[in-house]
This record gives sequence, C-alpha cells and structure tokens, in this order.
Amino acid sequence: MIDSHKRRGVMLVFCAPSGAGKTTITRQLLEKDDLISLSVSATTRAARPGEEEGVHYFFKSVDGFKHMIADDELLEWAEVFGNYYGTPRQPVEEALSAGRDVLFDIDWQGARQLREKGGDDVVSVFILPPSSAELERRLRDRGQDADDVIMKRMAKAGAEISHWEEFDYVLVNDNLEQCLASVEHIIGAERVKRERQMELNAFVKKLLTD
Amino acid sequence: MIDSHKRRGVMLVFCAPSGAGKTTITRQLLEKDDLISLSVSATTRAARPGEEEGVHYFFKSVDGFKHMIADDELLEWAEVFGNYYGTPRQPVEEALSAGRDVLFDIDWQGARQLREKGGDDVVSVFILPPSSAELERRLRDRGQDADDVIMKRMAKAGAEISHWEEFDYVLVNDNLEQCLASVEHIIGAERVKRERQMELNAFVKKLLTD
Repeated sequence: MIDSHKRRGVMLVFCAPSGAGKTTITRQLLEKDDLISLSVSATTRAARPGEEEGVHYFFKSVDGFKHMIADDELLEWAEVFGNYYGTPRQPVEEALSAGRDVLFDIDWQGARQLREKGGDDVVSVFILPPSSAELERRLRDRGQDADDVIMKRMAKAGAEISHWEEFDYVLVNDNLEQCLASVEHIIGAERVKRERQMELNAFVKKLLTD
Repeated sequence: MIDSHKRRGVMLVFCAPSGAGKTTITRQLLEKDDLISLSVSATTRAARPGEEEGVHYFFKSVDGFKHMIADDELLEWAEVFGNYYGTPRQPVEEALSAGRDVLFDIDWQGARQLREKGGDDVVSVFILPPSSAELERRLRDRGQDADDVIMKRMAKAGAEISHWEEFDYVLVNDNLEQCLASVEHIIGAERVKRERQMELNAFVKKLLTD
C-alpha cells in the first residue's frame, strides 16, 4: 500500500548514549528494511585500509570541506580531534526524492543541526537505557577498562541523555525485540503521514472525477 | 517497553467514505488490541431492543443533551434526523488518563470538532478506496440497490473524501492486511511519542542521579 503511492523519504535520526543498544537496533533495521540506507559522511581524515570513497566516507581536503560548509552543502557537520565530519546534502535529497529513507548516525548536536536544515523530513528517536546500573554494566562489558574510563563514559552518556527532550520519539531499551518493533512502528507510521505521500492530491482528484 | 512507562492514551479517529473498509479494519483492530476501546456516544433517540445504557449508548433526554452541550461536556455532537448524538468528555478523559486509547466512529465534521477540543490527544486517519470503480463495486455489493441509491452513496462518499487533507495519516485501502498493518504502525508509533510518556521526566531524572 505504501509502495503504491509515491512518497518522500524520511531522515531517520537515532540518538542514544553508548550502551543503550543503538548500534544493534540500527544494524538489524538496515538488514530488515531495504528502503532505508545509512547516510555516508564526508570527512577530512585519511582513508583507512579498506575504506572506499562514497561507500564508507566521502574523503575531502580541509579546503574542500570548508567550501562545502561555506556553500551550505552540508546538512550538519562537526570538528572532532582536528578532523571534520559532515553530511553532504545532495545524496540525501536524491534519496528522499526517490522515496528512500536515510538513517543518520550522529549525536544530539548533529541532530539539532539536521532539524534546522531538514525540517519535517527529520524524524528523531532517542533511545534510553533501562537504568544507570544497566548502562554501567553494558559499558563495563565492553572490555577490561579501568574505572576512570568507565566513569568518563558514564559522564559522556549523561551529557547525551540530557538532550532527550529534543526528540520526537523516546524508547526505553529494556527489551531489544520490543525496541526494534517500536522503531519499525515509527517508520511505518511516518511513511503514511499525509504530507509525505506526494501523489495523494492527484490520486484523490482522480478518485473524485472518474 | 511501552507498558513499563505510564503513557497518556490517544483519541483515534478513523474517517472514510462508506465502502472504504473502515468497519472491517476497526473491528479487527478492536479484536487485536486490548488497550483500545470504542467510544460510547450519548444520544436522544430511543433505545432499541438489546441496547444497554453505557454499553451501546448513553441515552439522554433532549433537555439533558442540551445541558451537556451548554456545559461543554461533549467533545463533539451533531443532530441527525431530529436526534442528537455526541461524545461525552468525562469517560474519554478517564480512559486517556489511565493509558487506554479510545476509538471514535465519527465523520469529518465530528473529527473537526474533536481536534478543536482534544488537541494533541487526537490522532486522525483517513482511509481511501483504491479507485472510484472499486468504491462503486463495494457499494453495489451491499445489496440489490437501485442505481439512484448507489449514486446517492457515491455522492456522499465524494463529500466525505473531499476532507481527506484535514487528517494526520492517509491510507489507501487496496489491501486489507497492509492497511491494518499501517493502522497498527500508527498506533504503535503514537504511543512512544515523547509527549505521551508522562513519566519520562522522572525516569530520566532517576537515570541521571542514581
């Protein structure tokens, strides 16, 4: 039914503190839903062995990246440890126009920029851990890290969580299957929102005149 | 996951021309989802055999009904062939506060009144038939009706369809299973919208202070 009427894709933004389960959920979502693809970022950092241009990143010079910023060719961008990372506007716009959804792996700051540029195309979801004890457990499980490292991660998680109120939907991930089901509900619902179905006007006109 | 956090219910409004399949979809939805109940209307018409007060209708005198209008106790109301029909506010508010969703069987005019009174609690879905030919076929299948009766139904359907743009979601029912799935997506998504999860503030506060 969705496919029978051309629709504009959505920009899906999932944010969460590390340890909330975002990586697992997004991986499973991308495996299950062929209409969703992961956004490819532009970066000024050097390509690592095996990384392909246009697949893993669009590799840019610092000057090239700064020109993209100046020309408003980026939906969001940030500088991290001296390297620039950002989302080129054009490939995203092409995907949305073709009725494909684009998933973004960005933090709350990127999400905020994306909302400013993307408007109603942006659907944002915040994923929360079920408890701080569970969050700490998940962060510890990642390896034999020293307590101070864990504490730093907890602090970073807290900073991310503090922006939960900026998001359209909020999921508490105490059950992966239920959380993934909710994500699928959100996407399924956003796809049938009136304003995303670009050919409904023509369809209804035909319905009323035939 | 949804159940683990108290949420405010939603007012679900499905509108469609007769022949679009709304009755089948709502019946299957009510069978599948225990959290949704059908709104009980107040009416001034006489009870028919088997109709129970508070189950099928709240039966009111004309004076009683007019007092409910005057006291703003109705979320929407209309006069049909000399009888009054309307939706009492209190039982709906009690259901929403308890985290139960309420489904309304009303037309576009009722939906418009409901939006004015219900605000963000209202989630409205318009169901369209796949084509005017299919709509006519479905209307004819209902019995050996004369052409002029069919034509009257088609005209009434057209009048209802002309208000499709007032709705949040639009479904084209060319496949009942897909249409029902979309309805379930819509409800599942609306339930995890941030502003409907009333205890998230307390939950996040605990998450950040524990």
